[in-house]
Parts: sequence; C-alpha cells; structure tokens
Amino acid sequence: MSFDTIINRFGTHSAKWDKMEDIYGVPAKDGIPMWVADMDFRAPDCVQDAIAKMHEHGIYGYYGDDNSYLGAICWWMRTRHGWEVDPQAIFTTHGLVNGTAMCVDTFTEPGDGIVLMTPVYHAFAKVIRANNRRVVECDLAVENGRYEMDFDAWDQQLDGSEKMMILCSPHNPGGRVWTREELEGVAAFAKRHDLILVSDEIHHDLVFPGTKHIPMALIDGISDRLIMMSATTKTFNIAGSHSGNVIIHDPDLRAKFAARMAALGMSPNSFGLHMAEAAYSPEGAAWLDDLIAYIDGNRQVFDTGINAIPGLSSMPLQATYLAWVDFSGTGMTREEFTKRVEQDAKIAVNHGPSFGSGGDSFLRFNLATPRSTVEQAVERMQAAFADLQ
Amino acid sequence: MSFDTIINRFGTHSAKWDKMEDIYGVPAKDGIPMWVADMDFRAPDCVQDAIAKMHEHGIYGYYGDDNSYLGAICWWMRTRHGWEVDPQAIFTTHGLVNGTAMCVDTFTEPGDGIVLMTPVYHAFAKVIRANNRRVVECDLAVENGRYEMDFDAWDQQLDGSEKMMILCSPHNPGGRVWTREELEGVAAFAKRHDLILVSDEIHHDLVFPGTKHIPMALIDGISDRLIMMSATTKTFNIAGSHSGNVIIHDPDLRAKFAARMAALGMSPNSFGLHMAEAAYSPEGAAWLDDLIAYIDGNRQVFDTGINAIPGLSSMPLQATYLAWVDFSGTGMTREEFTKRVEQDAKIAVNHGPSFGSGGDSFLRFNLATPRSTVEQAVERMQAAFADLQ
Repeated sequence: MSFDTIINRFGTHSAKWDKMEDIYGVPAKDGIPMWVADMDFRAPDCVQDAIAKMHEHGIYGYYGDDNSYLGAICWWMRTRHGWEVDPQAIFTTHGLVNGTAMCVDTFTEPGDGIVLMTPVYHAFAKVIRANNRRVVECDLAVENGRYEMDFDAWDQQLDGSEKMMILCSPHNPGGRVWTREELEGVAAFAKRHDLILVSDEIHHDLVFPGTKHIPMALIDGISDRLIMMSATTKTFNIAGSHSGNVIIHDPDLRAKFAARMAALGMSPNSFGLHMAEAAYSPEGAAWLDDLIAYIDGNRQVFDTGINAIPGLSSMPLQATYLAWVDFSGTGMTREEFTKRVEQDAKIAVNHGPSFGSGGDSFLRFNLATPRSTVEQAVERMQAAFADLQ
Repeated sequence: MSFDTIINRFGTHSAKWDKMEDIYGVPAKDGIPMWVADMDFRAPDCVQDAIAKMHEHGIYGYYGDDNSYLGAICWWMRTRHGWEVDPQAIFTTHGLVNGTAMCVDTFTEPGDGIVLMTPVYHAFAKVIRANNRRVVECDLAVENGRYEMDFDAWDQQLDGSEKMMILCSPHNPGGRVWTREELEGVAAFAKRHDLILVSDEIHHDLVFPGTKHIPMALIDGISDRLIMMSATTKTFNIAGSHSGNVIIHDPDLRAKFAARMAALGMSPNSFGLHMAEAAYSPEGAAWLDDLIAYIDGNRQVFDTGINAIPGLSSMPLQATYLAWVDFSGTGMTREEFTKRVEQDAKIAVNHGPSFGSGGDSFLRFNLATPRSTVEQAVERMQAAFADLQ
C-alpha cells in the first residue's frame, strides 16, 4: 500500500465524498473533496490487523480490562512527545468535539465567556454556543505570513466574565506549532485571567520536520487548571472510531470530569479502544513517519502551485494537512473567489468565516490525498484564476 | 456457525470473561461467566460481512449520509414490531445507558424523583443518582411466580415530586412481556402523575414464542410524554459497537433532546451505524428467529434443572436470556447461597440487590451461551445444593 494509491470512497458513507455535491454543488463525477478533515489513505496495517482480529473472533461484547489500551497511550505520549501520563488521568470520550463539549459543560456555567484564538476550528464555537456560553474571540495577528498571539491586546479585551480558554495546539487552521515561549505566555495569560485551559492537541503528531510540538502539560505551573485533549483519530485516519482522550492530572478537575462522565453514562465503543491500542505502537509510529514525509511533499507541491497565482497566499504549515489560503490579494469578493474554486475548479473546501473572526478571506484545503490529486487541484486552481497571471 | 460452537473469549478484552476472576473470585480456569448481558455467540453473517467490507475498504473516516441507516431502523420497527417510525424522530446515542442518562439530564432537574419498577436493570438507578436525582422505587408484586404492576400501591406512594418514570419493557430481570392492559395502565399512571415516560425496550426482539411484545408507542394518548429507546446491540450481540436509539415523536421533547445532543457534541461512531444497518435486514431477522429458538431451548434446560433443586425457583421468562432465580426457599442467607454459586459451582452471576428493592433473594444467570455450558452450569448447581435434595 502506497499513499499514492487512489481509493474510491464513494458509496462508503464518507461525509467528505458522498455529501460533497449536496453541500457544495461540486459534482461527484469529477469534483475534488478537500473539505472534511479526514485522509484518503488506508489506516496503517497494525490498525487493519486489529480490525481483522476482531472480525475473526466475531463476538463484539462489552469491553473489559483497559490496562493495555491505557498503557499504549502512555507509551505513545512518552516516546513521541516526552510526556509522562498517569493512566488514571485518562478519560475516553466520543471524539474531541464531545470532549470539548464535556469540558464546557463540566467546568463553566451558562453565560460564561470562553476564549478562542480566532480563526480556529469551527466546532469549538458551535459547542460553546450550543451550551449557552459566550464565544470570546481573541484575534490572532498575522505577522510575516503566520499567526502570532497578541497577549497585550487580549489583556485589554477580557472583562473578567471569562472562565475558560480553548487552545488549539498545533493551531488549526494555519498549522502553527506554538513555541515554548508562546505556550508559557498562554499559561501566564490563563493564570492572569483565572481561566481553565483546555488544550486541544489533536494535530500533535502531524508536525513537519524541523519543528517540534511541545505538549502544554510540559509547561510549568499550569497543571492545576489544565485539561489536555488528544486522539488517535486524526493521526491514523480513524475518525469513524469516534474516540478521543481527555487527560486531566489535577485531582479536583479530574473528579469533576469523572462525575459528569458517570452522570451522562459515557463509556467508549470497543472498536475505538482496539484500534487506538494497535495504532499507538512501533508499527504505527513507523507508518506515521512515512505519512508525514508524504504530506510534507504534498504541501510543497500545493504551496508552490498556489503561491504562483498572483493574489493567492498559502500560509506556511508547520503542522496539519490543512492548507489555509488567503485570497485577499486578488481584490475579489468572497463570493467571487469561492465560486471560482467550487464551480470552476470543482474543489470542495471549508469556508473561512466558519472559523470565526479573521477567516473571511480564507479557504481551507485538505491535502491528505494522493499526490496526483493535489497536482490536479493545483492545475485547476491555476486555470480558474488564469486571468490574474 | 452453530450456536453450539464454543468460542474462546479469554484475552479478547471481554468484560464477562476476562474480569470474572478479579470481580467474583470465580477462577478463569474452569469458571462459567453468566453475569454481563452479552452472548457467547458470533454476530450474524450480515453483520460480519459489514465489518469485512469496512476492513477491505480500510478508510475509517467521518460518516456521512445516514438515510439508509435510518431506513433500516424504520423497516425493522415496521416489520418486526408493527410500529411506524419517523426517521427524523431517531437519535443515535452511545448505547442505552448513555441514552437513559441523556433523558434524565434533559428532562429532569436535580432533586427530581424518577420512578423505577423494582427490581430492575441496575444502571437506571446508577445514572439517576449520578445526576443527583432521586430514585423512587415502586415495587413489583410477585403473583403466581411472575412480576405484576401494583398501581394502587404506587398511587399512594408518589408525592408529586416525581417527574419521570423509566419503564423496562420487556422487563429485566424476570423477563415479563407486559400486556396491552398493563401498558395502558402505565400510560394512565404517567399521565395521572404528570411523568415523562422513558420506555427502554432493548429486549424487545428477544421474546419467546407464544408472547407478543407491544411497543409503548402503540399505546394511545401517551406520545406527548413518551421517549422510546431501542438498540441492535442486545439483539445481535454487538454491545461493543456502543450504539442505541432514542426515538421521540413529540416535537417539543424532540427539540429539547436535540439541543442537549448538540450541546454535548454527541454523534455516533461509524461501526455502530454500519453494523446496525446490516443487522436490521431480512438476514438479521432470520438469524434472530434461530437465536430465539436456541435460547428458548437453553431456558427449558436451565429451568428444569434449577427448579428440581428444592428451595430454588427460576422465574418463567417470556423474554430476555437472563434467568432470575429466587433462593428464598432455601432458608439460606444471601452470603451462603451466593458462596455456593460462586465458590462451589464456580459460576459468576449478577447479585440481586444491585437491581434494587425486591432483589435480595435473587441471582441473575445469563443463558446466552452454548447449550453444553448451560447443562454444565445446571449440573454444578445441583451438586452445590445437593444437601437440599
């Protein structure tokens, strides 16, 4: 199996492929879906073998002893991220949208403000609002073509009604890997404003060579207000297993979260557990190294091709497979550049405004697809904007 | 594949098998696990084929179009239960413990009373208490060896602080299939006391010949306060897929539940959806008919053998594979008869008191295992209580 292999995902209940035409009007016949953040690659063999073993056994009963599952998580965090996790600190939620929602539900009250660094992953604002909490948008600054935090401005903006901050690290969209100094700044900011800090690190494994992700848990003095979130689903392309981890070392925060998990009758599906244990392994790590190299290649092809179009600018990614392209240099309206991408180039993408303040002139392109598809997308983009050449 | 096939479940993360020794002290070497309510049978071929197809595809991304899944549920309810379901009324939760918890969370407030007909499935009381609501135990009467409702007594007992009632239909434990008259009584009771009625019908497919299950939704005049719960997991032995349905036809109740689902970021895993769609099919129905006949045979073997022991009485099941055995006729203490079952017969069973009021003298035995294992369990029980002969 090579990442170059094109696999037909139509008719497999894939949201990304089967709903592209309905939602975007991009034809199934020859459209390219670059929206939903999953990959067009098969899961690694170690995960495939775990499914095969479950299938061969054929009895899908209640899952029992989770020690080896928890051990695999601890092993992964230690060997890949230099982070020692206490297995008792690990909760398993139904993915990280559910994990985020559970944090909002557990640690804040209706009306509380929750700080987001915008533009950011759209589901955060959605669950905050669905819980009748307030989204407090702290705008990231764009400096030298990449996102930077602006604590001075944010200190002025907050009014004391905020109770939580959700950090996205690495950041989506834009693919920033935050430095130790920046993370220390976040910790100081959270303490200064007495905020619970939820650190969504779902993209922590998808970091390109030359940059190092630092888990927020390794920053001093923040553990008593820190909730960590991670998952196998983005790294290994197993979103369908709908499984994520909320990791809480502080005993008081942990007890509160455990009480809400029990009250809501939350326990994980066994596929997610079997798959995660298989993925967090030396075999999974080797596959991931190959994947990163491949996506890094896709990124270079994409950025070179897109940045060659006058007025378009693809933000240099340090992490994630989600290119974030600024169309403001074209002078076009949002309707016009979006129409050209969707109707002319026939590419389905995520629209910038859904990521909140600062996203208006952007579209997000998913690059986790065979290289030939990325090349085709670039060609179509160059044709759709040929008049700018 | 025959139901007679003995499949080794040790080392597969089976709670029922792998945790038996830890929890009960029943040795893994030669113990018989008859506690956790899953079956020692493989899932039907149609479900196995669905897993094989997912594995062959190998991409486990975000699940999209759920029309065929919802259609399969509607088809099953119509053809097996004579119940017309509106696909828009269907929610998918992470099993029915989660479904029950979501109902408690959505439709009641802390301190509210929630009525259970005890003894009943232990997880109900657990989630009620975990939500800081009060369990109101309305005792079932035992008449002619089976459970009967006692509305006159319950009318006296309620004090107006109750907001919800959870019906278990068919009833677990004891396996009663409630008659139309009884269900009409429940509806009238719920109206009289202004209770939301949650009807857990997870055992609705596992009904023995000669008895007919009536969905609560078919009872007149209750739909504006009714929440239905069903699942593929018990019927097809796929608890690990952790998927259940909460079905709400009333628009106001449905909107409230939908809001909580969104607030908690709840969406289903794709294995549960693929497996449920495959199970709710003519092939699944044929397998189920065979399964029921097999379990009916197990039930007869078990009841005959157990009722031959003086002082023991197995309640005649109309549904479920969960035998409910009364030891009160032995004159033994609970400690004594439990010790004989666990230490002498080496059988792990559910203890009666966990089911609430009225369960003290009972143990629950899971009969969904190959016939030879049931026969062995009966022999061991007869030996363990040989002094009563």
